[in-house]
Amino acid sequence: MSSQPIRIGIIGTGIFAHRHNRAYQAVGNEKFQLVACANRSKDKAVAFAKEVGIDDSAVYTNPMDLINDPNVDAVDVLLPVQFNREIIEAAVAANKHIMFEKPIAANLKDAREIVLLSQKAKTVVAVNENWSYHPLVCAVAEFVNQGGIGEIINFTYDSARPYSPNSPYHATKWRQNPEHPGGYLSDGCVHDMAHLVPILGKFASVAAFATKRHAIHVCEDTLATTIKLENGGVGVANFTFSTAGVKKMSLVVHGTKGTIELTDDTDVKLFNELGESVDIAPITSLKANAPGNGLADVEGELAAFYDAVRSGKKLGVSSEEAFHHLAFIVAALKSVETEQAVKLEQV
Amino acid sequence: MSSQPIRIGIIGTGIFAHRHNRAYQAVGNEKFQLVACANRSKDKAVAFAKEVGIDDSAVYTNPMDLINDPNVDAVDVLLPVQFNREIIEAAVAANKHIMFEKPIAANLKDAREIVLLSQKAKTVVAVNENWSYHPLVCAVAEFVNQGGIGEIINFTYDSARPYSPNSPYHATKWRQNPEHPGGYLSDGCVHDMAHLVPILGKFASVAAFATKRHAIHVCEDTLATTIKLENGGVGVANFTFSTAGVKKMSLVVHGTKGTIELTDDTDVKLFNELGESVDIAPITSLKANAPGNGLADVEGELAAFYDAVRSGKKLGVSSEEAFHHLAFIVAALKSVETEQAVKLEQV
Repeated sequence: MSSQPIRIGIIGTGIFAHRHNRAYQAVGNEKFQLVACANRSKDKAVAFAKEVGIDDSAVYTNPMDLINDPNVDAVDVLLPVQFNREIIEAAVAANKHIMFEKPIAANLKDAREIVLLSQKAKTVVAVNENWSYHPLVCAVAEFVNQGGIGEIINFTYDSARPYSPNSPYHATKWRQNPEHPGGYLSDGCVHDMAHLVPILGKFASVAAFATKRHAIHVCEDTLATTIKLENGGVGVANFTFSTAGVKKMSLVVHGTKGTIELTDDTDVKLFNELGESVDIAPITSLKANAPGNGLADVEGELAAFYDAVRSGKKLGVSSEEAFHHLAFIVAALKSVETEQAVKLEQV
Repeated sequence: MSSQPIRIGIIGTGIFAHRHNRAYQAVGNEKFQLVACANRSKDKAVAFAKEVGIDDSAVYTNPMDLINDPNVDAVDVLLPVQFNREIIEAAVAANKHIMFEKPIAANLKDAREIVLLSQKAKTVVAVNENWSYHPLVCAVAEFVNQGGIGEIINFTYDSARPYSPNSPYHATKWRQNPEHPGGYLSDGCVHDMAHLVPILGKFASVAAFATKRHAIHVCEDTLATTIKLENGGVGVANFTFSTAGVKKMSLVVHGTKGTIELTDDTDVKLFNELGESVDIAPITSLKANAPGNGLADVEGELAAFYDAVRSGKKLGVSSEEAFHHLAFIVAALKSVETEQAVKLEQV
């Protein structure tokens, strides 16, 4: 097994390419080396290449040229998600590892094709879902899956992010005219799904209402859902991108043997059968098992990608799971429209 | 205006009659005097009368005889709610004040008749909803109604109560074979509605899932709902009577100008436009306006009943509001059955 750095080609040199560059640095030069980049606008690609030290000869305007660069081991796709499928097909065909941004695709048809492709691929096909790499969240998931609070009866989730008219994300054209369903909602809520599904298990069906409070948002910016889990539990999840200033995620899960509370991805509280607060050491000790070598967020996902490529380890999130995340948003938006409960589509 | 004690006749001398007796004592002998009681079982009525000091001559087996006792000013009805309508009609006809237990009735048809009756009655017709008399909850409601957090965008509510097989309530026949819809759910959730509606405003429609985890419960014991408010906001509310041991109510309301968090009926937190925690004095100062003379729970509702009878003050909850509370449960249960969003019925 090679211990050489994975030679990365970045496709799409926008806002998030800089974030990825910092994360590659943090994970370490012995694991990753940025060797190529591509952007429709040559100027932007050249500027990025200069900043991060990519050779001029490996700056492309056509992503297919980057994929076919023999120096590139793995492709890091940072394009609007409607382009994911085409690029993944090309990368797998060229025998390159690939990672790409969440949501997995702009629609469930493409998402389904990507899942099938990832199952057949000889290379690693990884959706970049940074929320799957919070060690404490992974530890809570493992604890609950081991029966730490008994059977899940129900749960309450509140995910609130502030409305910020000055966010650079508002300015991006693909966000102003999104091809993926729900705009901000799918963009943001798949993160929440990555937070929830490992802990709660898969979702069976959803009923939802939505509202919109800020004209700058192209779609509804607040989604309130009630959910039936595949394991029989029922619960609620609330997603708003419209608070005045509060930013918070709070998950409470009631089980037959206890209750667990997770706030953001940093704080956890555990209550026993008598409702008493008890020591969380049995949970935090599981953090060591989380993918990403103890790193969280984008750093964790890149570290896990390295382990998947070099050692065949499992990623923190599979493309099947990423399909499920998108299937939830699609079902919730359909429920808003039809005012009926909607079953989630399966791969 | 008389300042004499209101002379009370209690109909139904079960578990809650003792609770009411203690509350009457707490509010004070100068306001209330227990002068009569009625129970189908003469023995139970006599035992209760002895315990609380009611004269033997005012112990009845027929509630109509108690209503027509000229010594009785007000009737306190502690019967299974399917009897509310008949007793209220008789009391109003006899020109007696009356209070009766929540939910307002066993079905919306009776509930509607009770509302119409209460609007025409010359006497006070009061639903006993003790959760409408928590001074801090009333203060939060007033603060939010005054625009303290701007327009309501959305809310998350988690109401969790433990499963307790030894609860005396499980043994009561009318709970084992309830004539009101949803058994525990309507019994319990109308309390939650009394907590929520003053703060959030009326509910327009609901979509819900339910599950049942304990065979002792005759109906589903966990209800997860998503809600559209009449004011345009959307949110979620979770109700379970099935936790291992945790007992908690948590309400978070996100508005355009801030966020408010209310835990149980005792703790409140306020966040401003920047998401910073701020002083809650503007809220707690409103506690003085709450009905019930500063008393909470059953004591508060009895104190408010006194003020309504003697001074014409408004009660903490009207029969129209109590109708709305029941209409929510009825709509939620219909949504569970039909898997469609359901609009709440209006009086």
